[in-house]
Amino acid sequence: MAKVSPEKLNIHFNPYNVDTTAKPGSNLMEAAVAAGVHINASCGGTGVCGTCKVLIRKGEVESTRTKWISTKEYESGIRQACQSQIISDLIVDILPESRMEKGVLLREKKQMAAGAAMSLADGWSFDPPVKKLLVTLPQPTLEDNISDLSRLLKGLKQQYSLDNVLLDTDLLPKLAGVLRDGGWQVTVTTLLENDSYLRIVNIEPGDARARHYSLAFDIGTTAIRGQLLDLNRGKALAQSIEYNRQISYGEDVISRIVQSQKAGGLKKLQWAVVATLNDMIKIMTAEAGIKTVDICHLVVAANSVMVQLLLGLDPKYLRLSPYVPTVNNIPLVRANILGIELGEHAYLYTMPLVASYVGGDIVAGVLGTGLYQRETVTLYIDIGTNGEMVIGNSDWMVTAACSAGPTFEGGGIKHGMIAAAGAIEGFDINPMNYEPIIDVIGGERPKGICGSGLINIVATLLKAGIITQNGKFNTALQSKRVRKGNDGYEYVLAWAPETQIDKDIIITEVDIDNLIRSKAAMYAGCQTLVKSIGASCSDMEHVIIAGTFGCNINIENAVTIGLLPDLPRERFIFIGNGSLLGARLTSYSKDMLRDGRRIATMMTNIELSENADFMDNYIAALFLPHTHAEVFPSVTIEKGRAN
Amino acid sequence: MAKVSPEKLNIHFNPYNVDTTAKPGSNLMEAAVAAGVHINASCGGTGVCGTCKVLIRKGEVESTRTKWISTKEYESGIRQACQSQIISDLIVDILPESRMEKGVLLREKKQMAAGAAMSLADGWSFDPPVKKLLVTLPQPTLEDNISDLSRLLKGLKQQYSLDNVLLDTDLLPKLAGVLRDGGWQVTVTTLLENDSYLRIVNIEPGDARARHYSLAFDIGTTAIRGQLLDLNRGKALAQSIEYNRQISYGEDVISRIVQSQKAGGLKKLQWAVVATLNDMIKIMTAEAGIKTVDICHLVVAANSVMVQLLLGLDPKYLRLSPYVPTVNNIPLVRANILGIELGEHAYLYTMPLVASYVGGDIVAGVLGTGLYQRETVTLYIDIGTNGEMVIGNSDWMVTAACSAGPTFEGGGIKHGMIAAAGAIEGFDINPMNYEPIIDVIGGERPKGICGSGLINIVATLLKAGIITQNGKFNTALQSKRVRKGNDGYEYVLAWAPETQIDKDIIITEVDIDNLIRSKAAMYAGCQTLVKSIGASCSDMEHVIIAGTFGCNINIENAVTIGLLPDLPRERFIFIGNGSLLGARLTSYSKDMLRDGRRIATMMTNIELSENADFMDNYIAALFLPHTHAEVFPSVTIEKGRAN
Repeated sequence: MAKVSPEKLNIHFNPYNVDTTAKPGSNLMEAAVAAGVHINASCGGTGVCGTCKVLIRKGEVESTRTKWISTKEYESGIRQACQSQIISDLIVDILPESRMEKGVLLREKKQMAAGAAMSLADGWSFDPPVKKLLVTLPQPTLEDNISDLSRLLKGLKQQYSLDNVLLDTDLLPKLAGVLRDGGWQVTVTTLLENDSYLRIVNIEPGDARARHYSLAFDIGTTAIRGQLLDLNRGKALAQSIEYNRQISYGEDVISRIVQSQKAGGLKKLQWAVVATLNDMIKIMTAEAGIKTVDICHLVVAANSVMVQLLLGLDPKYLRLSPYVPTVNNIPLVRANILGIELGEHAYLYTMPLVASYVGGDIVAGVLGTGLYQRETVTLYIDIGTNGEMVIGNSDWMVTAACSAGPTFEGGGIKHGMIAAAGAIEGFDINPMNYEPIIDVIGGERPKGICGSGLINIVATLLKAGIITQNGKFNTALQSKRVRKGNDGYEYVLAWAPETQIDKDIIITEVDIDNLIRSKAAMYAGCQTLVKSIGASCSDMEHVIIAGTFGCNINIENAVTIGLLPDLPRERFIFIGNGSLLGARLTSYSKDMLRDGRRIATMMTNIELSENADFMDNYIAALFLPHTHAEVFPSVTIEKGRAN
Repeated sequence: MAKVSPEKLNIHFNPYNVDTTAKPGSNLMEAAVAAGVHINASCGGTGVCGTCKVLIRKGEVESTRTKWISTKEYESGIRQACQSQIISDLIVDILPESRMEKGVLLREKKQMAAGAAMSLADGWSFDPPVKKLLVTLPQPTLEDNISDLSRLLKGLKQQYSLDNVLLDTDLLPKLAGVLRDGGWQVTVTTLLENDSYLRIVNIEPGDARARHYSLAFDIGTTAIRGQLLDLNRGKALAQSIEYNRQISYGEDVISRIVQSQKAGGLKKLQWAVVATLNDMIKIMTAEAGIKTVDICHLVVAANSVMVQLLLGLDPKYLRLSPYVPTVNNIPLVRANILGIELGEHAYLYTMPLVASYVGGDIVAGVLGTGLYQRETVTLYIDIGTNGEMVIGNSDWMVTAACSAGPTFEGGGIKHGMIAAAGAIEGFDINPMNYEPIIDVIGGERPKGICGSGLINIVATLLKAGIITQNGKFNTALQSKRVRKGNDGYEYVLAWAPETQIDKDIIITEVDIDNLIRSKAAMYAGCQTLVKSIGASCSDMEHVIIAGTFGCNINIENAVTIGLLPDLPRERFIFIGNGSLLGARLTSYSKDMLRDGRRIATMMTNIELSENADFMDNYIAALFLPHTHAEVFPSVTIEKGRAN
């Protein structure tokens, strides 16, 4: 006889087929997060974005109706998850537009496995900062009865010339047993603590060198990418990519910071990212067939906000002028103290930060590209919600970051979505009738537009004369695709019956305006940085486009809208996920670890947020491709063609 | 209506008036330990010593009767606590001979407060290894927005020329808040990590320098002595002395090691010493009127077994040949990890060990005496269950330890007891009628004999001709005080009606034999050590007698029985509790901390346990004062005087 407990209600989430339980009165969004079910929530659960729509198929919730839910939707059982309190057992359908599909992530995972993120850095030797050393010790006698630790340190000195070795205090209780169990032969795991010291983080009886693994993670605001590395062979054994569970608390770093200021918010955000890492560790160790206890190192590259949330450091001051991080050179932290499910001996190395908006992901990216090793001047661009850029060579580096807004991730766009299955990415136009030719990720019916798709759409609309250089629709155009809607003029990309969402998918003047602002910020950032060193864009001998988003953009279209500078196309290099690459190299090589620290120190950060030049450059860039046409000579807009 | 829970029985201990609860079937001794009630238990609760007698005044226990309980005692309700399982609510009287009285400890506490432990070390400057530094930082601006930690480290470098500073990782979460709460003025607590690094262990907003305290502890096998120190003024604010709660698990280090090998034994022993420290911390902070959160350092001096038990390190190998400690240079440990109730920033510094039986107490003692600073050769002796001795000067030091047995602590003696209220300490004899003149600690009726008393008794009996030089009674003597008992001949020190225990208090030939073995071990140890450096006892320019026990012995009597070498009496110096003194100096001075480390490294330990010379010397010393009378020229035994 099943007993119904009033303290525990059952919830089933479709289409993921996930069952969970929750307390009566608890929040449906929180229950989903706790169960690892992703529901879009751009606003971080404040109810103002309307992206977290679910259908309550069975059971009851108590939910406020906001303007995002139409009367018809409300009657059919559609609610905002973040606004719903659980009253009874539930069966919940997450609506297509509220889902995060893994299609694109899986596509990217295949690229990762194929080594898509190529390395340009060279000259480093395989010499991991974490080592396993076999030590054979003489058995103690009455004439030689120094302490167990002294014997071990003496052995390390004699056999490996190691001085200045520290021991983790909590290894002491097992030291005597391990030495004797191993018959005075033990495997010692050493970790590079700093330039002066090695830390002994583990001791195992006998020869345990064969099992020696590490993890590299790129913790993005949206997705986390990870690799399980074999530190004996220097190769990746497994890869994983998952959405950062923090997404349920807001899409961008600012909404995460806002969330962290609520009671218990910081803890929740920390838990969300740690839970994602734990999921990924389970997946990768299972795939590689290894035990988590044999993992002794993690390298994490992430932006400053992600780093502070992972470490449980209040990120408040990152967004308040003068934008101060708590710490740039993050000390080693024992992973399990943060809740990461690894042995006590596994330490987390965090790639150093440069500033509030130039994080360890950029340092890792620059490390991986080898930018800092060459004499030629390179421009490195990471396009995203926060755009980061670096210019430099082996002697100097300047860096800056600008807030590009969520446009490139599909945010702030009427039908925007992240680059997942159902997103319109490829776009062309039949010049005869202005009918669109769309290419949807996953090959299914569309449900929205992703960032790279948006660039392609706007560039194509511009070249076709459907929009003008200030981003307004050519209202003289004879096409049923162009029409006046609630947000001004709009273009219909797909009619409701062709979509998954039973609504016309459109792009509006507001959307185009948002893209123009975003690309203007990126371009103005690069321009300001270039001018700060007394150069011009054409002096950049290489332009490295980093990031998964960068990988998927079309260079011609990006130049056409004025996102990227108009340079000979062969100067552009796609590096893929440079951040993960840099983290992996750091796990493989002490040289690279030291280089990463040096890069962070070398970088001069230029704050753009209150910079007058940046504002001027930004205003000049609020045009397609730019107010000063001469800086985009290769872009020819056939003015009035559509008239 | 009170509800009787079968899971919880009430126990009341007399005469301490302590109430506690215990589960049915649990051990009465364990319940007493948990409640902080001391019951003597020499054997560590195995039932073989019979020292833990209690009277079950009310209620029921299930208890095995051993040979230690007479039929009459058993019928009157007397049981061994360690052999008793609790069946019902109890009222328990701890019998006088099973009690540990605090009389002597209180006497010693007064001596401590009066500075009885004088320091012979000099040339050190007051410069504690833990410091509070006030740092004033420039407020960040857009032009100067380095991380909070970088700003703090830069301030420390500019204002205090400090380089190589590490930060405790778990201070990071509060760093941003503290800096801003303090208006960019903060108090940083730094701890000397090693010769290269300082560790920041605490940060407080504003100027918190006024509250800056530390603790020094001498953790003895029997008693723990502690002082609360003001690190601004360099003075002790409070003292405390308590029995080590581990006593309930056995009187000497060997029985503690045996106990530690039982399931959960190590944890229990660790808990017992930590609980004692916590009691003492409460007492001292209350007395001084300070908060525990303002204590940021502890220095502990202890023998190797006490150190390993405190740190939770299995002491097994300390007593097995070749006698190897786990660690000699004990790394800093966060006190609260061990269960010591102090803030997270309070670190424990443990005086380094030399060998299994030459511990940090000896290093601390040598430090306090300044032995290592002088060119003259000094013999340092710590008399106890384990006798330790050091010979050396500023260039070299040799050390040895021998097992003297528990005699000096009153163990293994028919009416032996520790030097507490009721112990016969002073002793003389009326030469006319061989009647004793006894002096009892606390001035009350006697209940036993303490170690210093035993020395006085045997020396006096020897000089009076009541015993011979081989420790046997002169049976020709006409006195009702000398009689034949169960253990051979004996001398009655007090008749039953004059005592607290309603039995004649006697000294037997077995007792005398035990003392001879103990003093022979001590003397042979010194002799072997002296010979190992090619010297003789008379080359010792100073003889320092360390330890509280040492303080209470009578030099003449100790020389008479051959415990101490027969040297000009002015060469003897009593240092009192040298161990606590050394710990205190270490808390006051980096120089002294470094000197302590140097002393431990300088000392060459000579293992006596399997040393042939030592055995020869030992056998020759099994005589009063010695087989070779010529080495004790000042001792004249009036042979046959009593005949």
